[in-house]
Order: sequence, then structure tokens, then C-alpha cells
Amino acid sequence: MDVNRLRALLESVGAGRLDIDAALAELRDLPFRDLGFATVDHHRALRMGVPEVVLGEPKTAEQIAAITEELVRTGQNVLITRLDAAKAQAVKARAPALRYSAVARVGTVEVSPISPRTGKVAVVTAGTADLPVAEEAAETLRMIGIEAARVYDVGVAGIHRLLDRKGLLDHSDGIIVVAGMEGALPSVVGGLCARPVVAVPTSVGYGTHLGGLTPLFAMLGSCAAGITVVNIDNGFGAAMAMGRILPAGG
Amino acid sequence: MDVNRLRALLESVGAGRLDIDAALAELRDLPFRDLGFATVDHHRALRMGVPEVVLGEPKTAEQIAAITEELVRTGQNVLITRLDAAKAQAVKARAPALRYSAVARVGTVEVSPISPRTGKVAVVTAGTADLPVAEEAAETLRMIGIEAARVYDVGVAGIHRLLDRKGLLDHSDGIIVVAGMEGALPSVVGGLCARPVVAVPTSVGYGTHLGGLTPLFAMLGSCAAGITVVNIDNGFGAAMAMGRILPAGG
Amino acid sequence: MDVNRLRALLESVGAGRLDIDAALAELRDLPFRDLGFATVDHHRALRMGVPEVVLGEPKTAEQIAAITEELVRTGQNVLITRLDAAKAQAVKARAPALRYSAVARVGTVEVSPISPRTGKVAVVTAGTADLPVAEEAAETLRMIGIEAARVYDVGVAGIHRLLDRKGLLDHSDGIIVVAGMEGALPSVVGGLCARPVVAVPTSVGYGTHLGGLTPLFAMLGSCAAGITVVNIDNGFGAAMAMGRILPAGG
Amino acid sequence: MDVNRLRALLESVGAGRLDIDAALAELRDLPFRDLGFATVDHHRALRMGVPEVVLGEPKTAEQIAAITEELVRTGQNVLITRLDAAKAQAVKARAPALRYSAVARVGTVEVSPISPRTGKVAVVTAGTADLPVAEEAAETLRMIGIEAARVYDVGVAGIHRLLDRKGLLDHSDGIIVVAGMEGALPSVVGGLCARPVVAVPTSVGYGTHLGGLTPLFAMLGSCAAGITVVNIDNGFGAAMAMGRILPAGG
Amino acid sequence: MDVNRLRALLESVGAGRLDIDAALAELRDLPFRDLGFATVDHHRALRMGVPEVVLGEPKTAEQIAAITEELVRTGQNVLITRLDAAKAQAVKARAPALRYSAVARVGTVEVSPISPRTGKVAVVTAGTADLPVAEEAAETLRMIGIEAARVYDVGVAGIHRLLDRKGLLDHSDGIIVVAGMEGALPSVVGGLCARPVVAVPTSVGYGTHLGGLTPLFAMLGSCAAGITVVNIDNGFGAAMAMGRILPAGG
Amino acid sequence: MDVNRLRALLESVGAGRLDIDAALAELRDLPFRDLGFATVDHHRALRMGVPEVVLGEPKTAEQIAAITEELVRTGQNVLITRLDAAKAQAVKARAPALRYSAVARVGTVEVSPISPRTGKVAVVTAGTADLPVAEEAAETLRMIGIEAARVYDVGVAGIHRLLDRKGLLDHSDGIIVVAGMEGALPSVVGGLCARPVVAVPTSVGYGTHLGGLTPLFAMLGSCAAGITVVNIDNGFGAAMAMGRILPAGG
Amino acid sequence: MDVNRLRALLESVGAGRLDIDAALAELRDLPFRDLGFATVDHHRALRMGVPEVVLGEPKTAEQIAAITEELVRTGQNVLITRLDAAKAQAVKARAPALRYSAVARVGTVEVSPISPRTGKVAVVTAGTADLPVAEEAAETLRMIGIEAARVYDVGVAGIHRLLDRKGLLDHSDGIIVVAGMEGALPSVVGGLCARPVVAVPTSVGYGTHLGGLTPLFAMLGSCAAGITVVNIDNGFGAAMAMGRILPAGG
Amino acid sequence: MDVNRLRALLESVGAGRLDIDAALAELRDLPFRDLGFATVDHHRALRMGVPEVVLGEPKTAEQIAAITEELVRTGQNVLITRLDAAKAQAVKARAPALRYSAVARVGTVEVSPISPRTGKVAVVTAGTADLPVAEEAAETLRMIGIEAARVYDVGVAGIHRLLDRKGLLDHSDGIIVVAGMEGALPSVVGGLCARPVVAVPTSVGYGTHLGGLTPLFAMLGSCAAGITVVNIDNGFGAAMAMGRILPAGG
Repeated sequence: MDVNRLRALLESVGAGRLDIDAALAELRDLPFRDLGFATVDHHRALRMGVPEVVLGEPKTAEQIAAITEELVRTGQNVLITRLDAAKAQAVKARAPALRYSAVARVGTVEVSPISPRTGKVAVVTAGTADLPVAEEAAETLRMIGIEAARVYDVGVAGIHRLLDRKGLLDHSDGIIVVAGMEGALPSVVGGLCARPVVAVPTSVGYGTHLGGLTPLFAMLGSCAAGITVVNIDNGFGAAMAMGRILPAGG
Repeated sequence: MDVNRLRALLESVGAGRLDIDAALAELRDLPFRDLGFATVDHHRALRMGVPEVVLGEPKTAEQIAAITEELVRTGQNVLITRLDAAKAQAVKARAPALRYSAVARVGTVEVSPISPRTGKVAVVTAGTADLPVAEEAAETLRMIGIEAARVYDVGVAGIHRLLDRKGLLDHSDGIIVVAGMEGALPSVVGGLCARPVVAVPTSVGYGTHLGGLTPLFAMLGSCAAGITVVNIDNGFGAAMAMGRILPAGG
Repeated sequence: MDVNRLRALLESVGAGRLDIDAALAELRDLPFRDLGFATVDHHRALRMGVPEVVLGEPKTAEQIAAITEELVRTGQNVLITRLDAAKAQAVKARAPALRYSAVARVGTVEVSPISPRTGKVAVVTAGTADLPVAEEAAETLRMIGIEAARVYDVGVAGIHRLLDRKGLLDHSDGIIVVAGMEGALPSVVGGLCARPVVAVPTSVGYGTHLGGLTPLFAMLGSCAAGITVVNIDNGFGAAMAMGRILPAGG
Repeated sequence: MDVNRLRALLESVGAGRLDIDAALAELRDLPFRDLGFATVDHHRALRMGVPEVVLGEPKTAEQIAAITEELVRTGQNVLITRLDAAKAQAVKARAPALRYSAVARVGTVEVSPISPRTGKVAVVTAGTADLPVAEEAAETLRMIGIEAARVYDVGVAGIHRLLDRKGLLDHSDGIIVVAGMEGALPSVVGGLCARPVVAVPTSVGYGTHLGGLTPLFAMLGSCAAGITVVNIDNGFGAAMAMGRILPAGG
Repeated sequence: MDVNRLRALLESVGAGRLDIDAALAELRDLPFRDLGFATVDHHRALRMGVPEVVLGEPKTAEQIAAITEELVRTGQNVLITRLDAAKAQAVKARAPALRYSAVARVGTVEVSPISPRTGKVAVVTAGTADLPVAEEAAETLRMIGIEAARVYDVGVAGIHRLLDRKGLLDHSDGIIVVAGMEGALPSVVGGLCARPVVAVPTSVGYGTHLGGLTPLFAMLGSCAAGITVVNIDNGFGAAMAMGRILPAGG
Repeated sequence: MDVNRLRALLESVGAGRLDIDAALAELRDLPFRDLGFATVDHHRALRMGVPEVVLGEPKTAEQIAAITEELVRTGQNVLITRLDAAKAQAVKARAPALRYSAVARVGTVEVSPISPRTGKVAVVTAGTADLPVAEEAAETLRMIGIEAARVYDVGVAGIHRLLDRKGLLDHSDGIIVVAGMEGALPSVVGGLCARPVVAVPTSVGYGTHLGGLTPLFAMLGSCAAGITVVNIDNGFGAAMAMGRILPAGG
Repeated sequence: MDVNRLRALLESVGAGRLDIDAALAELRDLPFRDLGFATVDHHRALRMGVPEVVLGEPKTAEQIAAITEELVRTGQNVLITRLDAAKAQAVKARAPALRYSAVARVGTVEVSPISPRTGKVAVVTAGTADLPVAEEAAETLRMIGIEAARVYDVGVAGIHRLLDRKGLLDHSDGIIVVAGMEGALPSVVGGLCARPVVAVPTSVGYGTHLGGLTPLFAMLGSCAAGITVVNIDNGFGAAMAMGRILPAGG
Repeated sequence: MDVNRLRALLESVGAGRLDIDAALAELRDLPFRDLGFATVDHHRALRMGVPEVVLGEPKTAEQIAAITEELVRTGQNVLITRLDAAKAQAVKARAPALRYSAVARVGTVEVSPISPRTGKVAVVTAGTADLPVAEEAAETLRMIGIEAARVYDVGVAGIHRLLDRKGLLDHSDGIIVVAGMEGALPSVVGGLCARPVVAVPTSVGYGTHLGGLTPLFAMLGSCAAGITVVNIDNGFGAAMAMGRILPAGG
């Protein structure tokens, strides 16, 4: 449409129906969007098979349901994060295709097939309290077409549990490491494996855990080079980082 | 060697020279290294063309010079980070091949050819105070065989400067964004471009900058999905993260 | 009255009814208010058309209702901030003229006409979570006679959305920029526009957002010169700052 | 030039020398600057009489001198902030017109006349330790054409000192209040006066002063409505905020 | 009893029934309490007319009721702080003499007359949100026999309100200043008055108020010399400090 | 089993049924657990008489009940920490042998006799608010076979209470000191007694207590040499530290 | 003088030389100081025998010397705090009567006799690192006429050292307790003694000491009721608090 | 002497020279020290073979030399921590027996033989920057008669280095783990070994390391049960904790 508008303007100039100064003035005022900067929008994921993302927490059930209904109507996949069970139920009433993962607190609707990407990502956790964040990452990976391998409960206090799974990690194209408490796991994984490691600190803990700041700071100060970190509990963000590394159609 | 030792043990069993209980006991005590877990060491960069990394700051000039001399003698490339000018001079006295970047505070020695990797990384900065960290990243990229494109001084208070360079960013395989002050640049870059973005906060600032904690926190809380972050001033780490994304021989 | 009392004292001296030492002693003890420092009170907004402000949060519904009833009785406009829906209902029962904005959590009563001020203020937000604070600002602007233009959901991860609205911003006499997450928006706006920019960080977020301290610190450390900042979630304060800039009758 | 380029393109289309698809492609790639967004640059202060600002601290004397020399050569006024005495001397050697305020740590060069703006700003301090920041503000005001009235050493522990100066404050068009320690002064000033108040916390103090975070937080939490705040020690920023409020030619 | 035990020991020695080495050994092992260090206990307020203090918050209603019942039975006055309304009701059921101040969240029982102390203390607040803490102080003062004068809602944004009450403050033997927000009031009071000033920060606020840390830090960094500070919301502690200054029978 | 597998492999080699290269390959891939590193697991407390530990807080009642049921079925003792009363009831329904301490928030099941260890530990508290943490420590000690002596409510503001109990402390093999508020007790105990002192800060407090960070920091900065510290409220950890000091069978 | 001016005004009115409206106008504009609010100034210590206080740290030697010279010339005693040895020497050159305590970093000049106050204050320290702060307090006490008893090095890790000095403490009219590390001493002293206790945390320490914040927070959270606290290292402030408690002529 | 005084008192009573009331009064006033509480002093290390400890940092070279000289004269061993090279040289001039470890920043004098204790302690470090703290621990262990085994540079990013040394750790009676950066090493060691583990965070690092607070917090939040922690850089304290665990003569 926008391109059409631009084309029409140029055609008017070409046909002598619009003089050059008028065309200049109009061009200068065209919103950038109108110039067809589609790439500007590619973070909005308009392409088929990539979901529209809705952050559920600050929205009412009604708002989420309305957005979902509209997206489904226009044939788009939907990924709703930080969605509690009560809201999920309300959304499902209006969008029956909703699939809800209580542990991940994620709702998804697939109305278009998801194109699989090349590459596999391991999602690793230190303990059982890290599960919700890991599952948010896994659900997000699924919705952007990346296969996830779950490697759970391999914290450093029982280091052999991790060493047992080294083979699987070595065959992954990226590793998301989710850990709370002292946040030590990404350092060990980063030392064992050469591929991209994205660390996710979790907020569950007490005392000096500081709501996840301690594992966050520990991960940022890791002695294993080349590890990167996302915000506390941001399983979604870690998966999206993998999406940047393993691009669609890549 | 280690594999040889293991082979010898098995041959002794096969030849009936060692009974099974004795073999069991010896196996249990073998250091893991002896089992041939060479991959455990791949983060130590033993392969030709990848440098050995030395963190210069906590070491004396003498210590750094000795390590460098030894590495050069055995044909390894060396990357020394956080190396001040005085120490660099002292090191150069014993390792004349040292090349020193004062702005990056990085010393390098290339005695083996660096194998170029596929892929190009843009190193973007918000202001001139971010240069040392950006140059540390760029020098590290060079030493691991990745081509770096410098896009400097494109901070968000003059947004057109960044928009002007969008084409270059779109053609990169990864973007390292270095920013101090409010740390806003990675969010804008992450919104404009779809490829991996690693954000590096810098420590130069005053007042609420808190030695870089504020841009760090801002980057972790970015509204652009899929951005990852490394420690304050850790240009080296950001480059190494790119090394994980664009693997050698990849 | 106070001036009368002072006049009476001076008349007593003039008439020789009061000797000078006694007059001196009495003068020294007069409360300052008695000296007629009416201007001391001008921040209390006694002039017609400017509302009396009530902070609703720490008060009971009954207290707020009583204050409101009294103010309305004496012909004053009222602005109640941080007023939840339950209290609003209770207040409305006794002050039916109350108008309640649930999103802004603001209640207002207009019993006197509000004199419009010269000047227009744009209220800009990064995301939908910033709406309540922006609306508190907008409601406050309305009650002090300033026209507000709402420019919502133009966060930096989709920079073209903001650039599209540049014309509107350029024609404002002041801009209130409300942002949570990384708090980057005021820097970009401050770089694009030359007029007063007051930044308001919001408290909605998680992890390194630190209840709004991170966008607050980011805004204070902005690379765009001349931006000023108010407390986290203080939409009211930002609007009042605009009231100082665009004075009544100004 | 850029506009010329655009005009040339349109003329080619009008003349039939360039077909529409080619024109579309070229338009899409034009840097934004080429579209003539001159206003994007107005924060860079290109207009006569407004200084170019150089942050001295992170730059070497040589760098500052070179920049200054170049700016002076092209007829621009220069304001260098956070410039220590040693660097100032070095700069003066190459730019003899430099005027240096040791207390403000500010260097200025006036090669073009500064157009005075309408309006007067009072710069108020709590104690003598706040002088450098206040003087940085005053020097900046001078360089952007705003008259400054200094009201120094009127901290709240001797409240009469401030009350004595109320008249002067009431006749100002804006008040910059600089305070360290408990940062209480802006609240009292904001209560006494109705015009714009920009508060600047200072970093000099000890113990719970936390390098200025305590007065900063106190100012942001002020009980006087409509006060705004800039970063710790940012006298320059406060003056620039006044420049936004009292615009050039305004 | 303990003294009796010691006397018995000495009598045994005097009577030759116990030899000196045995007496030495026994003395060395006597608990200190047995030596009659009654003064060690004087902070426990065993003297008539001074209440026993019970911190209500971490105790169940049943525990508080049992303690109160027992104390009343033995003729002691009781002061229960941080007592919510529900618990107060439960306590009253078993100790009907309980008098409850909902605003102060304090319960008191007077079964013995309180001996009045010489001296009067002013309890000053900045705003209405500071009332609960001020009332906790006032109730405590009453229970330890000190007359309290309430001077409420005289915050620094309307400085004349405080100046109006200067006479009352000058005639107090001590001043407790309760303030939240920016915590500026104690500085002004400390500058106006020469007697002991104990500052109490309050926890009610938002944003940079940090749960009261900001007014606490501001008060500790006050520019008025000789002000002392107690913990956030600790009205009880401020009153007890006055009790140390104006001793019983003093 | 694992050893059996290894033995079988070696027997195959010995019997010529498996050639050496195949054996090498298989050995390299054997999980470490298979190599019989039983000691790696000794922290998991597989030996009779030592309980399996379950952290109750992040788990549902159902999950805890299922785990408990299974452990009981296989003859293991169970220690469930941070178990609230509601969950305890639910667990008891399926594991009737559960014994619940409401104050300690600890559930235990003893199905095997606990072997007593040599040594006795004193558990000391400053105030009544520290009881839950002290009881968690005492219950844990009991479950690992260590006798606990409770010395409660001996805070430093009444120092004679502690001095009275010095004899008991001197006869302990280790002392756990639990304290909130200013966390001073471990310093005094560490000065009085020569044996191991493990300090536990508690989270109950207000204002500058910072959720236990203040007593934690105070304990870490203690002027008594050789005191060690565990996390806030971590009574379990302190007891386990004593278990390391007084080993089973030791 | 000011009173004279006021008297002249009243005499003019009395003599009919000035009409009442003119007198009113002039009165309203008189600076408050002119109204003779001498008490406002009593914190400035204008009375004979009380020193003028100069904070040495942020001033140059020249500034301090000039102020001191002027004060000495007008017959006033001087107390200079935070004065380093080099500056002291420079000041002594111009004010030879200066007496310098290197440990307290305090300079004093006595040109008028100091009137002794009724009451004695004990200055107590935990360790030798607390000496400078304790001596600053002691020197200040001396200059305001209060006798100080030094009780040094009685930290809680050797509790008997303090108990030995209990008699001296009991006979003091106030106790200043200076402590770093864990800041436990004021709690023990406050429990042992009934008189006013002012606690001063010191900044010497490492790790979790946080520059004195930890002992500060510990003191504010003390379990001994009625203790008050001043800023880190503020020995001067603690002494001035004693000056408020034991007033001149009191 | 004190015991003699007490004996004399009892003899006077026994001889009838002192009546019982007078004896009671005198006893009550005896300083505690006079009662012979020698055990109170055992933390002061009066027994042969245990060093007197001097904290060098806050003392002048002269003070340290004087203390050392005196201790040596009376036949005591001396351990001086945090002693820089310049001071060490000055001390050596007066106490030639001083032995100085530059890396540990520890000076020691052995004039009496050190009695060896039963038990061996491993001192483990993550990296080379942790050496000074580890050596401080090792030197302290030596001076209190405990054999130390150094296991250096076995950080978790190369986990096999640690696993290689497991045998040595398993044969230690206690393990001191020194680590900076993310502080992960103690968790892994605590999981591998059953004996007492004391963790020491170090202050060397940058960015989110926060001067050692991050590894401190990580260690306190370790997922390995029963680990205890000492202050940042407190190698001395960790060794003294081992001294409490492995008592002299034990």
C-alpha cells in the first residue's frame, strides 16, 4: 500500500501531472513507514509462521482476548507470555485454539504452520525452581521454529549430572542455561562447550539471592569467555536471541 | 598420550597381563584428562590460529612478558587485554613482535596466520568515550579471524546518525553495540536489525551512571527482544560471543 | 486581618498608646503569616481555576470524601491522585460531581471554570504499561488549564513510530516523556526537539528494572542535554512542572 | 545538496530518464539526512551565538585544543565543561582567546556575539561546596545568552538567609537550586516560588551522602510539586534545561 | 535470693565451714546475675511506673494476650507497639484495661500510676502520612511520663507553617521530628532550635523514597549540627531516646 | 551396576570378544557415574540414617507428598524444610509418619534409626523472632544425628543473659548463633568461646535491617576471628555445616 | 543594628515623621534578620566561649587561614574539622595560636575562655581504627565546654574489657560510642547504661563493611532501645548532639 | 594477683576481720577480670605457640614495629596481616626475625616453636588473581600449626582441572576455597567433598563483580549444603575458622 502510494506519486511526476517542488514537499512529509522500510518492521514479525508476541502480565484478560481474537482472525500465530491461569481461561473462551502451558505461564495459538529453522537448542536448568523460565524459553523456541532439547536439574553441586549430558550439549547449535541460586551453571557449560551460550538468571531464591541479581551478576562476571546474558526470568528473550542466531530460512 | 595410556591398559587386559579388578581400580583413578576429553580444552584455544588470552591487569609486566615469550616460542598467537602502556613497553622488550593498541589497551602477537571466519561483525558505539571498549572488541575479533566494521559515535540523541548507517548494519552477521550513559543504543539497533546483537555497557560516566550499572541494567531491560548483554567494559567478551556464533571453520 | 493587626499596632505607636520597646517585643513574636506573606501560599493554588490537590493513596475513602465535599462547598476545583476505584466510588457517593479516570487513578471535580493557559504539552509514552502515569499527567494538565496531546506507544525499539510523530512534537511548548523498561525514549525525543522535555520513569517492569530506578537513572544520565526528570511514576509532578513553565495568565 | 540530489532524481523521472522502479529503489536507500531533516540537527546548536559544547574530562588536552582551534577558526563559540587547570593551560596555548573559570572548571571562547535571551535565572546554592556546580551552570547560562543571578550559601539550616532573598527569587524566570548534603533546599525554594525550579544534587559529602545519590533521591521525592531534577553535579544540564524553557529568540 | 546465696557462702567461710579454695571455686562459677548486678537490668524497666514493652508484630494475638495478662496480674504497665487492630481486639478480650490507638498501632495498659518526668517534648511531623509514627512516639512518651506537644503537618514546602510554631519548639526540652519524602524537616528545625533533636524517617513514599532510606540518609547528612537519628518508622525509639535525655526522677 | 557394566566390558576385552579400539570408544562415552564415582554422590546422603532433603517452598503439596511417599517406601528418612502448615497437612495425609514442627516449618519422617554422631552443638538466638530459624537448625541437627542444646533469647542488649550460659557454650563442639536486628551476638559468642561458630542472620526486622542484609554484613565483618556465616534464614545450612565438622561415624 | 533600625522606624512613626502605610510597606520588606530573630542565629554560636566551626576538607589552606585569622581577630574561638596536616601547617603560619591534633584531624584556637558545662561525656571506642573519629568528638566536646572521658578499645569480641569499665560509664551524663566493623558496641553499652547513647559508625573496614554503612545500619537496628545515631565518621556531630543535651549555662 | 586479692578478702572474712556485709559490697564492685575469667581471654591466644595477630593496614610502620618488638621480647610469635612491602621493611629493621610474604602481604615472626595440630587443610583457588588471599590463609594456617595443601587455578570454566585433584581434596580435613569473579568454585567443591568447606570471595574483578559482593552473595546462596563463608578477601578469617575446627591439642 505504502509502496503503491509512492509509486503513484512517482507516476504522477513521470506523467507530468505533479511538478517537482510539490513532489519534493510531499516526499519530505511522508511518514517513514510510507517509504516502505519494511525491514524496520521485521522485529514485529509480520512474516508467516512467526508469532505475534503479547506480554500478558500488565494486560487484562479482556484486552488479551481481544488482541488474540483479532490476530487469529487475520491468520497470525500468537505467543502470550507471563499469562496466569485465570487469564488463560478467559482468553480460551474467546480463542478456543489457545494452548496453555501452566508451568511456562505461556499461551500459544497456531493457526499457520511454523516453518522449522535449521539448528537445535539445548535448554539447560540447574534446579527444579528454574523450570518455569526454561519452559518459557522452550515454548518460545517452538513458536519460532527451533527444536529444543530439555536438559533439566543438572546443577553444579552434583557436577557429574552435567558431565553425563555433555554429548547432547556438544551437538546443539546453541545452549540456553537457566539458573538461580549462585548462577554457576553457565560458567561450567561455557567451559565445556564451544557454541553460543545464553544465560538466564531466575528470580526464585532468598537472602543474598536478591531476586535474581546475584546469579545475574555472577553470570555477567563468568570466567568462561563469550557467554552472554539476558534479564532475570527472561526465558522468552533468551529464545529470541537464539532466533537471531539461527535466522528463519537460514 | 593419555589415550595411549588407556590403550596400553586395555592391551594389558587383552593380553591377560592385568587382571580385571586391578584394571577397574586403575580406571577409577585416572584423571579425566587422561580419558581424552580434548573438547574440555577447546575453550583454551589450542588450535592453530586462535590466540591464547592473557588478562593483563592483575599481572606484573614481568609475568606477562614471561608468558608471552613462552607462547611465542611455542608458535602460539597471543592476545593480552587490559594492558597499560608501561607494561606493554616492558613486554615488547622481551617479545618484540608485540603490537600494542593504546586506545584498546590490547597487545597482540601474531606468529601463526589467523584463519579468517565466515561472517562480518559491526562494532557500534554511542560516543567517543566508548572507544576503548569498542577497540578491545575489534582487536579481539581480528585475532579470532572475524572482520570488524567500525560504526562509531551514533548515539541516540542524534538518531539520524544511526539511521544513516542502517544499510551497513543490515549486512552484518552480528552487531556489538557499545554504550555508556543511558545505554539506549542497543534497543534502537535491536529494533532496526534482525541479526544477533550483543550489548556492552561502559563504565565511563558520573552520577547515576553508577560505574556502568545503569546502562547494563537498561540494556538487560531493553524493549527490543533477543538482545543479549555482557559485563561492563567487556569488549573482549562480546567479541568472544561472536566467535561462538560464527565458529572457526564454520 | 493580619495586616489589620499590624496596622493597629503601628497606630497605637503613632498615637503614643504603645511605647516603642513594647512594640518591638510584639513585632518580634508576630507569626510570619501575620506579616501578610500571601505569596508564601501561592503554591497552595488559592487562585480561581486551579485545583486543590489531594494525594489519595495514604488516606481513607472517608477522609478523601470529607475533604472533597468541603472543597466543593467552597467553590474549589479538586484533583485527587492515586485514587483507587473503590475509594472513588465512596467519594462519588458524597461528591457526585466527581469524575473518575480508572486508568489514571485520578478523580477530579470541576466546580469553577478552568482558565486555559497559553501553550500545549505533548504527553509521549514508550509502551502501553506507561499509560496510567501518562494519563495522570494528562488529567493534571487539564485541571491546570493546559491542553495535552497524547502520543502513545512510540518506544525506541520501533523508532519509525516516533519519527512519524516528530511534527506534532515540534509544535508543542513542552513534552512529557513517560517510559519504563530501559528509559531510552526521552533521550531520543530530547535529541529531536528543542523545547522543554520532562522525563517520567515508570515502575512497571521486572528484573534489572528495579522498580523504575533503572529508567530513572538512565534518564538522568541521558546524552541529550537539558532534559529534566521527576520521580518514578510521578505524572502529576511532570504536569505541575509544565504548569511552572507555562504559568497561569502567562 | 541532499535536496538537490532528490530534486535531480525527480527530474530524471519527470524527464523519463529514470523508470519508476529504479527511482523507488533509490529512494528507499536514501539516507534520512538526505531528506533534509535539518531540524534533527538543531540540538547541535548550529545557529550563530550558541556555543559548541565539549566535554573535557574524557579527552586529552591535545584533543580539546584541536577541536577548539577548529571551532574558533570557523567562527563558533565554544564551551568546554569539566576542564581541569592543566588541560586549560594547554588549550590556551593553541586557543589564546580561551577564558577559564577554575572554580567552574569551565573554559569558554567567544568569537561571535552571544544573543541575549529574554528572561533571568537565579542560581541558588546551599553551601560553599556547591559552588563549582553552580558556577558551571552560571557559565553555561552566560554562553547561551541568559542572565544569571547568584544566590549562594542559603542552606536550610539557617532558613532566614533564604527568606531574605525571596524577592530576588520571585523576580526570576527560572531557578536552578544546587545542593549537596541532605538536598533539602529545592523543596523550600519550590514552596516559596511559583516559577520553574531545576534541582542539581552535588557529589561532595561523606557517609550516607553516597556520592550525591541521597540529595538526588531527596530532590526527586520533594514535597514541593513540579520541581524537576538533573544528574549529580550536572550544572551544565540544568542551564541547558533553562535554555529549553527560555528559547533563543523567545 | 542471689544475694542471700552469696551471703550464705560468706557466712560459711566466716564460720569456718567452707575453706577458702572451695569458696574461690564456687565464686568463680557464680552466674553474674547472682552477684546482684541489678543495674544490668535497669533497661528492662523494672521500676514502678515504667512500662514493660512488647513488640507486637512478630507475635500472635494469643502470645501478646498471655504476656499482657501476666504483666497486668503482677501490677506492671504495658506498652505494645506495632499492634494491628485485629490483634488488639483479641488482647482486649483477655486484658480489658487495654487502651488501643489505631493510628499509632499502639496498645497500652496502665495499672500503676505513671510518674511524670520533668521536661516536655515536641513531636513534629512534615505531613499527614507521618502521623502513625508520630503517634507511636507520643504514646510512648506518655507511658514513660513525658508530656508531648504535637506539632503536625509543618513540612518544608510551606515553610511559614513551621516558622509560625517556632515559639512552641523553643520552649520544648527535646524535639522529635518525623518526616518521610525528602526528610528535610529536621534540618530546618535543627537550625531554628538549640535543644536535642531526634529525627525519625518514615517508610511511606514511592520511587526514590526507597522505603524510607532516602529521608534516613538525608537526616544523617543534615547540614544542621548535632541532630541524631533513629531507624525508619521507629517512633518508639525516638521517645525512648528522650527518656534517656530526661531521666525518671531527673 | 555401573561397575558391573565396566567389569563386563573389561571381561569382553580380556576374552577377546571386544577389540581395543571399540573398548576405547565405549569407555570414552561412559557417563562418569558409570565409572563408580560413588563419592560424587555422598552429598546426596545415600547412607542409612541420613535424611533425604526436600526444599518445600517452591514445590506443591502434591509434589512433596509424592516424593515423601516414595522415599518412605524405600526406607529413607526425610527432612522437608520451608514447609507451611497447609502443605504439611496434605503431605501427612499420604505419609502419616510425618512429624511437623510449625515453628521450624520443618517436616520429618524417620523410618530408619538415625545414627548418633559424636559431638554436641549449641543453638543460640538473640531474640524470639529468631526462633523459626533456630528450630530449623535444631531439627536438621536431630535428623543428622547431632544433639542440639537450645540457648534462646540471650541478645547483647542484656549481656548478662549470655554470660550466664557461658559454661554450656564452652562444653559444646560447635555453636550456631542465630540473630537478626544488628547481628551482634556472634561476635560476642566468638570472643567468649574457642570452638566453631556458624552465624545465621535472620530476615525479620524493618528499616535498615534490609531483609537481613545488615546482620549478614555485620556478621561477616565481625571483630571475632574465625567466625563463618551462612545465608539469611539458612538454619538448615548452618546445621549441615556442623554435619561437615562432626562427620558421621566420626 | 537591626533592632536599632526597627527602633528608628517605630520612633519615626511615634514622632509622626512616617505615616502608617509607609511603615507597613517597609516592615513587610525588612529582611527577617532585621526583625531581630537572634535565636535563628544561635546555631551559629555567636555567644562567647562557643567556637565558630569550619569544615576544613573542601576548603583550601588559604581559605581556612583567612577565616581563622579573621575569627581570631574578632575574639572568637575556632574549631576546624577534617583538617589535614599540610593545611594545618599553612594555617598555623597565619594563626600561630592554632593547636593541631593530628589523630583527630582537628585544629583549634582558643582566644576566649571556654565556659565549662555541667555534665561529663564518655567517649567509647571498639578498636584502634576508631580513634580519629573518637578524638574528633573529644576535641569538639572540649571546645564546647564538656569534659570527656576516653574509654578506648573495648570492642565486643572481648566483652570483659567493657564490663570492667561499667562504673565509669554509669557515672557519665552521656556516652558517645564509636565503632566500625560490625558496629555491635552501642547495643551492649545501651543495654548496660541508662543515659543518652549516641552511636557513631566509622568508615574504616573492608568487604561487607561498605564504607561504614554496615555498622551504621546495625546501630540503627540496635536491640537496645533509645540509642540514636549520627552519620559515618561524624564525631563532631555526636559531640554537638551532647551539646544540645547538656546546654551551655545548663 | 586478682585471685590473690579475692583470696585475701575471703581470708579476712574467715579470720573475722571483715564482716559479711562489707565483703558483699566489695565483691559486687570487683571488676570481672578480678574474678579470674581467664577463659574470657583465650581468644587472645595467650597459649605458647599461637601467634599474636596484628592487623597491619590501619597502623603506621612505627606502631607495628613497636608492637612486634615488644611481642618478640616477651617470646610470642607474631602474625601481621595486610602489611605492605614498605612497612615490612621498616618493621624488619627493628625486628630482624620478621619473615615477609609479599604475595600474601603477611609478616611473621617465629620465636617459639609452633605446635602442629592434627589435620590438614586444602587451600583451593579459582584463578591467579585469588593468590594473595589464598596465601594469607596458608600463612595463617602455618602459624597456627595446620598443614596446608595448595590447589591453585582450578576454576570452573575448566572443570577437569578440579576433578583431577579430587583425591587430594577428599583426604583433607577441611577445604578453604578462594574465588573471585562469579564465585562458583565452592559450590562444585562442596558437592564433590564431604568435609568442612569455608568459602572466601575475593575483591579483584570489575563491573558486576562489585568489589567481591557478587561472589560473596553467590557463595552464600550456594546450592551445595553446609558451605560457610567469610568476608571478602578474609583469608586470615578462613584459616582461623579452620583453627576452631581443628583445635590445638585436638
